[in-house]
Amino acid sequence: MSEQQKNRISVDIYGQTYTMVGTESTTHMRLVASTVDDTMREIKQANPSLDSAKLAVLTALNAVNDRLKLKEQLELLEEELKKLKD
Amino acid sequence: MSEQQKNRISVDIYGQTYTMVGTESTTHMRLVASTVDDTMREIKQANPSLDSAKLAVLTALNAVNDRLKLKEQLELLEEELKKLKD
Repeated sequence: MSEQQKNRISVDIYGQTYTMVGTESTTHMRLVASTVDDTMREIKQANPSLDSAKLAVLTALNAVNDRLKLKEQLELLEEELKKLKD
Repeated sequence: MSEQQKNRISVDIYGQTYTMVGTESTTHMRLVASTVDDTMREIKQANPSLDSAKLAVLTALNAVNDRLKLKEQLELLEEELKKLKD
């Protein structure tokens, strides 16, 4: 079995360049990067005194919060689907 | 209808104190904070030269990536569930 192809792109997030490597499509990776960049800029507008480390931590907190809630929703739906199929 | 109760807690993430406010339980909020803290420390171990802003951006990228993928999975399951119920 050959290794899954990895994509590598450069993205700009809040004035810094990052190299992203992943098996996802470059379109998906660019969407991820622009979401992080947009969220940092939105939080900055509401809280002009925050430095980039804090903006990034708050962005990470939002995303992890959403991820955990989606994970819970997904588990409930999987449970419901399982019941319907049984 | 009364406003949904908001919880407010202080959390420590990578040596900085943050105030989190949300309608989620404090247990959920602490789990979110410790996930971000743990992820930043894991990335630091693998990349000792990164500063805290970059560690937080990489943590945010991971979380947003997972969130988008979970969202797609959720939409597929909702579609499947809808078909089974029709």
